[in-house]
Amino acid sequence: MGKKPDSRPYKKTGQENSNAQKPDTKTKNRPARPMARAGRQAKSATDHYIYGMHAVRAALKNPRRRKSALFATSNAIERLGMTSPGAGPDVPVNILQPRELDQMIGTKAVHQGVMLRVMPLPRLELKDLEDFRLLVILDQISDPHNVGAILRTACAFGASAVITTTRHAPQETGVMAKAASGALDMMPMVEVGNLGEAIKTLKKQAVWCMGLDSDADTPLNKADKQHNMALVLGAEGKGLRQKTRQLCDQVCRLDMPGQIKSLNVSNAAAIAMFALSMP
Amino acid sequence: MGKKPDSRPYKKTGQENSNAQKPDTKTKNRPARPMARAGRQAKSATDHYIYGMHAVRAALKNPRRRKSALFATSNAIERLGMTSPGAGPDVPVNILQPRELDQMIGTKAVHQGVMLRVMPLPRLELKDLEDFRLLVILDQISDPHNVGAILRTACAFGASAVITTTRHAPQETGVMAKAASGALDMMPMVEVGNLGEAIKTLKKQAVWCMGLDSDADTPLNKADKQHNMALVLGAEGKGLRQKTRQLCDQVCRLDMPGQIKSLNVSNAAAIAMFALSMP
Repeated sequence: MGKKPDSRPYKKTGQENSNAQKPDTKTKNRPARPMARAGRQAKSATDHYIYGMHAVRAALKNPRRRKSALFATSNAIERLGMTSPGAGPDVPVNILQPRELDQMIGTKAVHQGVMLRVMPLPRLELKDLEDFRLLVILDQISDPHNVGAILRTACAFGASAVITTTRHAPQETGVMAKAASGALDMMPMVEVGNLGEAIKTLKKQAVWCMGLDSDADTPLNKADKQHNMALVLGAEGKGLRQKTRQLCDQVCRLDMPGQIKSLNVSNAAAIAMFALSMP
Repeated sequence: MGKKPDSRPYKKTGQENSNAQKPDTKTKNRPARPMARAGRQAKSATDHYIYGMHAVRAALKNPRRRKSALFATSNAIERLGMTSPGAGPDVPVNILQPRELDQMIGTKAVHQGVMLRVMPLPRLELKDLEDFRLLVILDQISDPHNVGAILRTACAFGASAVITTTRHAPQETGVMAKAASGALDMMPMVEVGNLGEAIKTLKKQAVWCMGLDSDADTPLNKADKQHNMALVLGAEGKGLRQKTRQLCDQVCRLDMPGQIKSLNVSNAAAIAMFALSMP
């Protein structure tokens, strides 16, 4: 991963570093180049860009995260606190102009002057979990903005892990990392092939599985709270799959008095985590 | 606006309708063409596309909404319930293939087979408000996804209006309408030039203004609840502006035990509205 032997916190130009890639000024969404594969990494995993101050800072701090190059403006390097000797990241750094970053990732991505080329984090397995106090289970939620925002909120409410399915769940992307605002590199993510089996396993470990569903009989503020909880959330529109719903210990609804009766799933998740956190 | 004299619920092709625009297969993000201006419509207002089932359905039902053309797949027309005679919208309809919609709006927009060309809704003024039970004030929140999601949640919690500033607030767009999931056409939006003056006016009308700020002394679950409430939310990163904060009757914080101490603003807004709605 190109650890530098000299004392400079970062290299000043891409030319100094054979690993670093020059920004491609022709194509805005350059296809990512695959890096070598690791342990439980998905076979199809390829590198991608994480951007935005919080997301990049968290990725740089995460020892599990494989990173290959940082692209940043001088200002962003300063904001990341990398200007003092020895404070640099363990990754080649390329100082660029803001417009060069725009050219690499497109002007719609709020990169805040910083981008990091990374490999997706390998997902954990259910058996890797040790703390079951608050788990968040995503039943085929596919929008990366929503998954990212849920990761952020789960991290804020001290959840132990977010569990996703292998199918109908988004791969890690820059969009997800940005929405997660650092939580992608703080929050353990578990991937399961069969969510029903996973819920059964959790129930055997005394985890109380609470689903959220607009048709449920129990209002959210009457939810049973247990020491170990899993909040189970379905995709927007579809909601919980029938089997998932049946396996939950309790299914609660969120009562809302207005004309619209459903919330964005990350908003509903935030309310549920808040309600569960209340004494 | 091209009201059709015949009994067909919609026109079958773009060729039948001189108002309808043929999809431009060359440019994905066609610049919107201006339509004639109305009352308090912003001078710079131009037409744009609302897409997605909920958003389009709400716009079609909204008598205040000026619409010029509907573009939809046959399936979407059926899902909108427009196949029976007389059930059609008061707007020319163009039946297209899904890929033609993709070409008009880009493949990233989840259009669900339906797009409506509209003028932005004219915003209301503070003096137009009559119901003050729950207002949501956005202090320069600029991301249209967040504004849209907050509109949706505000509508779900029965808010009377969402108040935005003229500057540093996004114009109505398809992205905002999609995130609002219909709420853009259900929720009155008030625009004020000077937020400080607006808050003073509301306070004179016995509205209790509660700001949300991570540095506040009072936790959210200890918030004073009054008959008339305004929830005041600052931009992500910046938070409430100092003057806005000073003018609030109370500023509350959201306590979270995890590593991340701030939420996406629409998630924070959802939690605050839920907390205020609790007995």
